[in-house]
Order: sequence, then structure tokens, then C-alpha cells
Amino acid sequence: MSKERPTIADVATRAGVSKGAVSFALNGRPGLAQTTVDRILAAADELGWRPSNRARSLSVSKAFALGLVITRDPGVLSSDPFFPAFIGGVESVLAPRGQALVLQVVAPGEGEEAGYRRLAQDGRVDGVFLSDLRHNDPRIDLLTSLGLPAVTLNRPEVPSPFPAVCLDDRPGTIAVVQHLVELGHRRIAHVAGPQDFVHATARTEAFVSALAEAGLQPAAIETSDFTAIGGIESTKRLLALPDRPTAIVYANDRMAIAGMGAAQQAGLRIPDDLSVAGFDDSELAEFVHPGLTTVRADPHAFGEAAARTLNQLIDGDGSAVPDVELPPARLIIRRSTANLEDS
Amino acid sequence: MSKERPTIADVATRAGVSKGAVSFALNGRPGLAQTTVDRILAAADELGWRPSNRARSLSVSKAFALGLVITRDPGVLSSDPFFPAFIGGVESVLAPRGQALVLQVVAPGEGEEAGYRRLAQDGRVDGVFLSDLRHNDPRIDLLTSLGLPAVTLNRPEVPSPFPAVCLDDRPGTIAVVQHLVELGHRRIAHVAGPQDFVHATARTEAFVSALAEAGLQPAAIETSDFTAIGGIESTKRLLALPDRPTAIVYANDRMAIAGMGAAQQAGLRIPDDLSVAGFDDSELAEFVHPGLTTVRADPHAFGEAAARTLNQLIDGDGSAVPDVELPPARLIIRRSTANLEDS
Repeated sequence: MSKERPTIADVATRAGVSKGAVSFALNGRPGLAQTTVDRILAAADELGWRPSNRARSLSVSKAFALGLVITRDPGVLSSDPFFPAFIGGVESVLAPRGQALVLQVVAPGEGEEAGYRRLAQDGRVDGVFLSDLRHNDPRIDLLTSLGLPAVTLNRPEVPSPFPAVCLDDRPGTIAVVQHLVELGHRRIAHVAGPQDFVHATARTEAFVSALAEAGLQPAAIETSDFTAIGGIESTKRLLALPDRPTAIVYANDRMAIAGMGAAQQAGLRIPDDLSVAGFDDSELAEFVHPGLTTVRADPHAFGEAAARTLNQLIDGDGSAVPDVELPPARLIIRRSTANLEDS
Repeated sequence: MSKERPTIADVATRAGVSKGAVSFALNGRPGLAQTTVDRILAAADELGWRPSNRARSLSVSKAFALGLVITRDPGVLSSDPFFPAFIGGVESVLAPRGQALVLQVVAPGEGEEAGYRRLAQDGRVDGVFLSDLRHNDPRIDLLTSLGLPAVTLNRPEVPSPFPAVCLDDRPGTIAVVQHLVELGHRRIAHVAGPQDFVHATARTEAFVSALAEAGLQPAAIETSDFTAIGGIESTKRLLALPDRPTAIVYANDRMAIAGMGAAQQAGLRIPDDLSVAGFDDSELAEFVHPGLTTVRADPHAFGEAAARTLNQLIDGDGSAVPDVELPPARLIIRRSTANLEDS
């Protein structure tokens, strides 16, 4: 942030509140006492703070474009089916309106902040999607200070002035575990996604707590990276355990399908020798053999809802846009999971 | 095109040449006699023709963004692995440079032309990628008249002033057919992609001519749509034929993997009862069971090369940028294809 203009942090210090509270007050979001709001606005006034040159309620939408910054390796676009499906959902809302999606893949750190700054400059986009929320995500403050409208995918852990479009991963993961426990499995392992992402942690926590609910401990937890190769490596390690798991719950379909192939190539029959479940219900889950038991999160609908909400915010009169709660991810039972007794 | 300014077609009529020749001359591409070039430039001068407001050699790159307009259903982003991988390759070149990709999904016809016009307006992008070339593709003339730098994925059938990045699909498809013929197959069917795309037609033609080379006719050709559902429907029709094919060559992996699953669910063993081959070598091809024999086209490398070439054109001094010929798609043999005698 440039030293020439006061930051959210400066306003927060002067008003004696958190940066999150400043974000809320400056964006007119409810949830703060009016006296607090008044104190913050006074501090902002005294410091001459203003949201860059793009205060959203003051300008008519004119970029006709929305932005998505993905802070991952560019290969993620093909290795993780979430993004293509999410972007497809976004485009299904943008296409009839003639809007474009400005997509920027950046490295974590400096590159990320620069990416959002570039999008905010020159009215290049009217708003952005915040995906892959991280623990203590710094982007909420960054976007508030840039004055750039945003929608978060799920709710960040830090206070956020932006509407959230939420899809709860946990009920689906819990249902997978319950399904396997009902089938008689007791040694159930998990191949998790990168734990710096809130959604990956949420799936892992749901897995552990659902097992605890059934009086069980995880047979093992492997932290992987959502890629096919990562899924295979984790699967091989799990199958080499002295007390091999009888079921594996993967944090995405990609790892599950690759892991299933690795188990089959090692001579195991699915589901007779090993039950396997994924997460995503990506298009191929239904069509591999055996069909993959998984959790349907519908990233296309997620993209549609996020695009609609962001447009509502951009087109609106500055009044608060409500959060959207999508139907939670749900269990889809196919043939890759079976009774332990059958084996 | 506005009636107020002369079009490429007007210049072509006045100079007595094709619109393609005008494109070549106005973009300084080699291949025309100097007298022809002179006549075209004179006609353009007399008519007061000029390339909109963005003549590329006259302005410094300033959008720091490249454009990709996809004229398909938005769902294609998740149903066809080409685009995510291609976009990943593009982003791997753009990310370190801080460039963004402006992605626009549009309906065919009016929507498409409007999409390119929007990108050209206001310097929103510095250039565009032209994918999914069609027969008699009208976009070459459109982009020439918009003065928007472009790179085509493969060479269009119409004359084009733009550099082409080429990846020949045909040798891989021919190698698949030869491989199956060597394995003893004589009844080989093909599940093709939509035939309005040049690349889908190219794969189908390569399939037919490779069979002819071996003195064979196609057992059947199904025209499908590159989706899993489409692949399954075509597979079911092929398996219901009185003289069932012993091998099926699919125009992409998505259809092949789904088709393989459909055949397995119908009780056929792969490869014992049916050999299956795909096209793409998408990440899952290696990991499904049995591993899919396919053709590796490397869309990630395609995206990298296209982005580098487009940046070269944009950064350049207006001199011609040479076409790029990528290594052709090649056969990857896995376990989904086997000797007919083994069955």
C-alpha cells in the first residue's frame, strides 16, 4: 500500500478498533454498534481516507468484466476440476450479459497483491471473486482498501464486508464416513488437500469428527495436493501400511480416481478389497469403473450463484447484498464402496 | 462493421483482389507480389481505410491482457479437458509477466462478433487467441478489420495475416489406427467430434485415410460432441451393431473413458472384448483401469507456445512473426488396446 495515503490499518488504530470493523463500517455492512460506526467514519474523515478511485456506489459499472485471481500453479486449471466447472458457471451468467472474465494466475505473496491491484486499476473489472480462502486471509483487507467489490466463496475467518456465497462441504464428507461405517468399515483413511486452504481443512475436520462420532480414529491421514500423482503416492503409502485401511476417503475425485486406478493396478479389487470415495462428483466419477461414490458439490452452480451475487452488488445502489447459502454438498453412492463383509 | 468507414471488402473490391490478400498486405505479411501489395495499399489509401484505433505497430502494449473468446456452451470449460490445459499453458507465460487473460464465452453468430469487438474496444486486450477454427472461419476478416493482433491455433482454411501455432493431430490418429490394425483389428469404429471444427474433421479424415491405407473401411463413424454423455450414447449404438466393432477410436479422452466405462458396465472386458483408444492424454487417461491408449497432443505446451507467439507479435516492431510448428500429437500405448487374438 502506498505510504502517501492512509490505510485501513491507520483508520483502525485511530478509531481503536480492528481492521475488520473498519471494513464493515466503510462498506456499510450491518453488525456494528452505531457509535462504533460513527467513531470509525470520523477517524477515516480525519485521516482523509478514501477507497481509491473506484468507490462502488459512486460509479456506474463500466468495465463489463469480473475478475478471478487464482493463487496457484497455472497447472491447477487442468488438474483440479473445480476451476473449469466454477468458471463455466460464472460464464453462463456473464455470457448473455456480454461480460468477460479476467483471469489472472499469480504466485502467492507479492504477485497476488499486485494481481488484485492491477485488476482494480483503470476500471479493468467491476468486481472480483475471492476463491480458495486461506486462514487469516489478507485479501479481505486488500480489497477493502482497493475499493473493489468482491464476493467470497464461503465465509472467511476474518471479518469481511463482502457478501459470501456458501456451499457447506462438511455434511457430504460426514455422510461419506457414516456410509462407510454403516457398511462395516473400521479402518478408514483420508487423503486430504493442502491444509492452507479453508475448504481443505473443513473436509479433513469433518472427516475426523464424523469418525469420532462413531467412536473411531482415522486409520491414517495423508496430506496431498489434489493432483492425480499426489493421490497415487498417498494411496501407495496407505496400502503399504501394516494394518491396511479397508476404505479411503479422498478430498477430491481426481485423487480418488487416480488412487482407485493405483489400487487396481496393485491387484486389489474395488470395492471388494478396498472401498473408495471421492469429492466433487466431477463428470468422470459416474463413468469410471466401478462408478465412484462421491460428494456432489456442484461447482457450476457455485459459479452461477457467485456471478449473480457479484453482479447484484455491482448493479446495486450500495445497500447490503445478502449472503447466499447453496444446498450443501451431498453423498452420491455408486459401486466403489461396499460392505466390508462382502470382501 | 460501421458504414462510415471503408471495410476490408471495400479495399479488396477496389484493388481487384481477395479480402485475404488485403489482410496480408495491410498486416505486412509475406506471400504477395510487391505490385499486388502496392495496388492494395494504394486502394486502401484512396478509400481512407485505417485499422480502427489500435494499429498494433503504432502503440505500446498497454492492456497487459490477452483475450480468448470461446464460442461454445459455457459447460465446455469443464467437459472438455483441452481448454483448462490450454489456458493453464497460457497462464504459465502470462503469470510471470503480470498479464491477465480475458475470457469470454459467447454464443455463435452475433454474440461472437460482439465479443471480439468488445475486446478490441478501449484497449481491453493487446491481442487474442483464435481457437476452434471453423471451416471458412469469418473471424480472420473480423479481427483484421478490428486491427487486433491474433494468433491462430493451427492454420485456418481462409488466407490469414496472423501467425499460426500448429499442432498436427493427424499423425497421432494415424498411428492409433496402424496400432490397432497391427493388433489384428479389422472392424474399427470412430466416435468423432463436432464436424464444424477443423480439428475434429482433421481427426476423422486421418482415421478414414489410415484405414484406407490398410485396405479397410470404417466399421462405423459416430459424430458426437466431445462430452462423456455423448461418448456413452455413441458407444451404446456401436455395441448394438449386428457386426460389433472390436475396437473404437474416440476423438477425445473424455468420450473414450466414458465409453470404456459404458462397455465395462455392459459386461465387456477391456481390452479382451473391446480395444479402446482416446485422444488428448488428459491426466486421468493414465490412471483409469485399464490405462487408456491415447494420443498426446499436449494442450499445455500449445497454450505456452500460443501465448509466447502472441506476445512476440504484440511486443514486436511490426515485422512478421513466424508460424510455430509444435511436435505432432503422438501415440501413447497403454493397456486398453490389445491383440484381437487375445480375446
